[in-house]
Amino acid sequence: MPGRHFLQIPGPTNVPDRILRAMDRPVPDHRGPELPALVGEILAGLRQIFQTTRGEIVLYPASGTGAWEASLVNTVSPGDRVLAFNIGHFSHLYAECARRLGAAVDEIDLPWNDGVPSQRVHDILARDTGRTYKAVLVVHNETSTGVTSDLKAIRGAMRSADHPALLLVDVVSALGSIDFRFDEWEVDVALTGTQKGLMLPPGMAILCAGPRAIEAAARVTAPRYFFDWRPVLEETRRGYFPYTPATLMLYGLREAVRMLLEEGLAGVFARHRRLAEGVRRAVAASGLTVLCRDPALYSNSLTAVVVPEHADADAVVRAGAQRLNLALGTGLGRLKGKAFRIGHLGALNELEVLATIAGVEMACVMAGIRLPLGAGLAACQRFFMEQYIPAPATT
Amino acid sequence: MPGRHFLQIPGPTNVPDRILRAMDRPVPDHRGPELPALVGEILAGLRQIFQTTRGEIVLYPASGTGAWEASLVNTVSPGDRVLAFNIGHFSHLYAECARRLGAAVDEIDLPWNDGVPSQRVHDILARDTGRTYKAVLVVHNETSTGVTSDLKAIRGAMRSADHPALLLVDVVSALGSIDFRFDEWEVDVALTGTQKGLMLPPGMAILCAGPRAIEAAARVTAPRYFFDWRPVLEETRRGYFPYTPATLMLYGLREAVRMLLEEGLAGVFARHRRLAEGVRRAVAASGLTVLCRDPALYSNSLTAVVVPEHADADAVVRAGAQRLNLALGTGLGRLKGKAFRIGHLGALNELEVLATIAGVEMACVMAGIRLPLGAGLAACQRFFMEQYIPAPATT
Amino acid sequence: MPGRHFLQIPGPTNVPDRILRAMDRPVPDHRGPELPALVGEILAGLRQIFQTTRGEIVLYPASGTGAWEASLVNTVSPGDRVLAFNIGHFSHLYAECARRLGAAVDEIDLPWNDGVPSQRVHDILARDTGRTYKAVLVVHNETSTGVTSDLKAIRGAMRSADHPALLLVDVVSALGSIDFRFDEWEVDVALTGTQKGLMLPPGMAILCAGPRAIEAAARVTAPRYFFDWRPVLEETRRGYFPYTPATLMLYGLREAVRMLLEEGLAGVFARHRRLAEGVRRAVAASGLTVLCRDPALYSNSLTAVVVPEHADADAVVRAGAQRLNLALGTGLGRLKGKAFRIGHLGALNELEVLATIAGVEMACVMAGIRLPLGAGLAACQRFFMEQYIPAPATT
Amino acid sequence: MPGRHFLQIPGPTNVPDRILRAMDRPVPDHRGPELPALVGEILAGLRQIFQTTRGEIVLYPASGTGAWEASLVNTVSPGDRVLAFNIGHFSHLYAECARRLGAAVDEIDLPWNDGVPSQRVHDILARDTGRTYKAVLVVHNETSTGVTSDLKAIRGAMRSADHPALLLVDVVSALGSIDFRFDEWEVDVALTGTQKGLMLPPGMAILCAGPRAIEAAARVTAPRYFFDWRPVLEETRRGYFPYTPATLMLYGLREAVRMLLEEGLAGVFARHRRLAEGVRRAVAASGLTVLCRDPALYSNSLTAVVVPEHADADAVVRAGAQRLNLALGTGLGRLKGKAFRIGHLGALNELEVLATIAGVEMACVMAGIRLPLGAGLAACQRFFMEQYIPAPATT
Repeated sequence: MPGRHFLQIPGPTNVPDRILRAMDRPVPDHRGPELPALVGEILAGLRQIFQTTRGEIVLYPASGTGAWEASLVNTVSPGDRVLAFNIGHFSHLYAECARRLGAAVDEIDLPWNDGVPSQRVHDILARDTGRTYKAVLVVHNETSTGVTSDLKAIRGAMRSADHPALLLVDVVSALGSIDFRFDEWEVDVALTGTQKGLMLPPGMAILCAGPRAIEAAARVTAPRYFFDWRPVLEETRRGYFPYTPATLMLYGLREAVRMLLEEGLAGVFARHRRLAEGVRRAVAASGLTVLCRDPALYSNSLTAVVVPEHADADAVVRAGAQRLNLALGTGLGRLKGKAFRIGHLGALNELEVLATIAGVEMACVMAGIRLPLGAGLAACQRFFMEQYIPAPATT
Repeated sequence: MPGRHFLQIPGPTNVPDRILRAMDRPVPDHRGPELPALVGEILAGLRQIFQTTRGEIVLYPASGTGAWEASLVNTVSPGDRVLAFNIGHFSHLYAECARRLGAAVDEIDLPWNDGVPSQRVHDILARDTGRTYKAVLVVHNETSTGVTSDLKAIRGAMRSADHPALLLVDVVSALGSIDFRFDEWEVDVALTGTQKGLMLPPGMAILCAGPRAIEAAARVTAPRYFFDWRPVLEETRRGYFPYTPATLMLYGLREAVRMLLEEGLAGVFARHRRLAEGVRRAVAASGLTVLCRDPALYSNSLTAVVVPEHADADAVVRAGAQRLNLALGTGLGRLKGKAFRIGHLGALNELEVLATIAGVEMACVMAGIRLPLGAGLAACQRFFMEQYIPAPATT
Repeated sequence: MPGRHFLQIPGPTNVPDRILRAMDRPVPDHRGPELPALVGEILAGLRQIFQTTRGEIVLYPASGTGAWEASLVNTVSPGDRVLAFNIGHFSHLYAECARRLGAAVDEIDLPWNDGVPSQRVHDILARDTGRTYKAVLVVHNETSTGVTSDLKAIRGAMRSADHPALLLVDVVSALGSIDFRFDEWEVDVALTGTQKGLMLPPGMAILCAGPRAIEAAARVTAPRYFFDWRPVLEETRRGYFPYTPATLMLYGLREAVRMLLEEGLAGVFARHRRLAEGVRRAVAASGLTVLCRDPALYSNSLTAVVVPEHADADAVVRAGAQRLNLALGTGLGRLKGKAFRIGHLGALNELEVLATIAGVEMACVMAGIRLPLGAGLAACQRFFMEQYIPAPATT
Repeated sequence: MPGRHFLQIPGPTNVPDRILRAMDRPVPDHRGPELPALVGEILAGLRQIFQTTRGEIVLYPASGTGAWEASLVNTVSPGDRVLAFNIGHFSHLYAECARRLGAAVDEIDLPWNDGVPSQRVHDILARDTGRTYKAVLVVHNETSTGVTSDLKAIRGAMRSADHPALLLVDVVSALGSIDFRFDEWEVDVALTGTQKGLMLPPGMAILCAGPRAIEAAARVTAPRYFFDWRPVLEETRRGYFPYTPATLMLYGLREAVRMLLEEGLAGVFARHRRLAEGVRRAVAASGLTVLCRDPALYSNSLTAVVVPEHADADAVVRAGAQRLNLALGTGLGRLKGKAFRIGHLGALNELEVLATIAGVEMACVMAGIRLPLGAGLAACQRFFMEQYIPAPATT
């Protein structure tokens, strides 16, 4: 298909040319003199992006799935109790990962259109008088549903229950898009991949580990080698790695960090908020429904859209892919066929969002969903225009 | 500005990644063994794109301006009479180029919203009983106005006047976008740059020279060196050049030729027609005016849009550039401030056109032009949807 | 430093432009329609390169270290006995990986200038009448010493001892450079990274798993999630992955596979043999010593060079890096300071080898090692010239 | 052929990755807001590289051949007398270009192994009492012979003859490699292409025009359009161009300028001097002959090597291209078959030079020339080592 592909799944996101070009270069000697400055800049920048001074950055050549495993094998021993909340496909899989690695997981089943309820967190932990839970697993922004849980409230609940469990947070589709505060919210481990708000291709897992998690790693008995973060922390301090790092990804990561800090975190978050609100206005004006039931928890990195009762959300995604050069996300797990997902995170601007909405409208009609072409677009344009003070009008 | 830039001027056009990557490679020895196969494939492919078997391809590292000069110094001697038609900025400049190179140019002044009138061509040439005109200059698709002159009728007029003047045609914003038939229309020289329908960066001038033009080159007395096509024709026959060619551009050109032939010329023209009609529907639905007065001559590679009386077209272009990451073309020459231009040629698809229209609507409003946001978009979407047979509708 | 960097460590190797460009492209939807053809071509090509029809290919975004873990968690349960041979840094670390993952490892300590002795393998396994060893770990080409063990003989020893242990082989610096025959040598798991003979950047782990290993995976009790190959095998069969794959690496891998098959495996091996012999001739003519004591086991992908008694091999490497734009490998583990390593694998030709030798000679002199400049070069040139029949001589 | 190509012709030269990547990016609107800063940095940087404050930079999308034409049509009217010196293929062609454009050229025939004799310049001009010569054409570094004429002396000769002719200098294979001082030597026009010391691909012509040349342009009567520098000078002052510039080349040019200024002109010249001397030592040690007869005029950007009487220099070049992935320059014009040329300019370092010499030695032997393999290499290595103070020796 001629022209540009619109990759509007909720990650991987569109990789800016600047980042692609930074990675298109000779591979350096990963034990050579060039590494420490490169690694040092990345670690310092990522700390700013995680909003932490006390967390340590850990990098692996791996996927987000690998990041889950890394967060667990370093903090949870086989047999340890872990508390998890099933509010979507990925929060369920994170729990499943813990289970497969030998943890005793209590996975609280919840509706897939809402966040992790902090009251419930408080109640469960308060009842755990033996302090048997070693960790609480939370997905900050659930990529399957477009719901951003209130981490501050969750941490508050843990504090008010006076529970020492570690707080492990998946920030895969949040970091670099949605405000996430590692230090302020006393997160113990945050984990992500490179292919979302960090605007890189997939291929690298990134963790931020706080002091309590690092202490825990000295004690836990989980068998581990590749994901053991102790040698990584030790070597990255000197600017190297105990494994062969994905060196070209490091050059891309440095460029991504630079781009985010040039725009400024506040600017990045505001842009995501603005683009996301444009999408939501369009969804509403088209007569479709945003899956997330609580406006306070709307995700600014993706929107899951529920299709009418007898429609097939997969047909919308198919129409986009086959006819419009547009990639949308399908509904996952129990949302299959019922919802599709629009990714609006990473390197993105207003015209790209409008192209996406135009395509979504057309793909819906192609999939047999009746909606007024252009209505969503007009609503989104009007929202985007609100901030501009137009010049005096001319007919 | 984050996200993709929308380069929707009427050229240079968006260069596909595939072409950019083909050019991002080591420079070869331009006298080495690799060249002949590369050059051979390019020349054969360009012949197909010019729709010729009798024309010879001539390549220069130069701009379209250089292509004008090349078309003239090889066919027109200082003092020769030349007939030209001022129907826009570029047809005027082409005439001016001839004048500066010493030709006696009769430049017929005509309205800037219409094509070259074939009847007029006939009348002038029929009156030239001494056959003093050596060449007729025509811009096939006038990039400043969005008007595509009827070359077939023009050549018909020359034939019916039985005039031997050479027909030199600027196909800069037509080739690879709009049907152009070198052989069928008995064109003597066609000239273009690489940065429009050929989807390359600017930097190369391409000519197609027919047998009568090549004969003329042996006789003309214009002083010439760089643009003398005789040594070029001789060396390219063996796959080399008498100058150092822009070798990386050659790799890009080969890729561009492949892409056009893979899509098929008929497909390429149909896509341009379709995208152009979408734009025109949007312009009309927005209450704006297409400059070209004759629908039969609407350009399929760009649309010049006239703004309301007291509005400033330059302000629209400025709003796009400064606020929307959108590049539109300004009005040129006598159209300055009165019209802006939307480029819709080269590597482009429906969603990119819709993003462009969305941006044009918003930029107009920012520039103080009152129009209903979304109206143009809806009209364009409806047109694009006409070809699809939707699945049975679901509410 | 101006000019090209000579990356002559034993991996990562120089990534050809063709592969870098294949990776410099938009990220696709990893659940989209483009993946199956891409993945299918890669798997089929890798099978050819592993010389197998019965093995299954497993891909992970990870390093070679991750590949070790993957080979073990799918075939060895905690507490299982494993036989390993310490003949160099990496064979020791592979054993250590198994130990850390809970295996009971018998690691036979051997000299670091020789291969795994097949007779010893036979003797140990023959004595294990209870068939308690579940796996034998072998590094085909030990990257720290430049010794290629005789896998055929090792498998023969296992067969003659009639022992059912699985044969797990690290082919990290062998695959795509040195003849390795998965089927013929009845290997159960072979593992590698992308950054050596496959000519890609680091970032992906590749395994080839035979039927007995796949059976074992159904039984083993090792806790595993990311490296569990069962879901990978299931999904790659359909052209997808259970995790977000390093999609751009996949495009590079397809290109690498194409390049290797275009040259032909026999041609690739012959080229490596030829370049390696050139290096060894140079080392000898310089008065230095190849570490590997048995010429039958000389590695064709790297050469470890022993420096004279009081010299410092690290100083040679430093001189290359700081003054000559040349990266050489240091001596690892017990070879630190005593040997340096020249990588001569991957995308490489004669002039690059000669440049490397020139640099090695100069770096040695800079490091205070007395040797005749140019002697190694001349020996290498003479060897490279042997195959050419020169034209009749002219003075 | 696997591995890197060694492009060691005297230009185009190897384009550094950094420059290639700077050019691998979306094409900008050449009338957009991004241009002025880009153009401004380039012009300022080029002025530093031409060592001028009074010269104006003129850029064209063209080849070096086009630069010749541009230097002439702006300064010489048809019929004007021009003085030229045939000391090699390119100085002859420059004269021929002037002739073709209508000048009355006195081309002094001289040996092709020496520079332009300043005494001769003085004598001819002193005799021209009518001051009929309008321009003197000199090629600073003759790319076909490897001779660098003494421009300072030539300008001195013109001054001592008190002749007002303009001094037009071809610095194609000198600029950015060999010390060239536009202001100090009172050059009137200097011209070059991008593909030599500027390390870019071919495709752009660069002129530096001094005040007297710019004055002349207002008076000369040569018909000109594309190469008329008046509109170029006017528009580039504002950061734009009167033609569509080769925009991606501009990004590359900015990067090249940055690289040269980062290294420092003095450093760049010293590196070229050093690498060139290494090559000459090798040529001598191999028993071959440098064409240039006067060591004071040895070119630091290329060396033309004379082969023994009955040998065929073209066979050397062919052997390099077909068997060694090495591109050397052939002998041009009257040197065809008698000499080959080694380019050693642009982005280059010692190991690349040594690889080139290794290849030259082998190619010579393959072409039937008897020489001791390795002798040239050793001589070159020894020269490169002279500057290093080795550590205390170890046997």
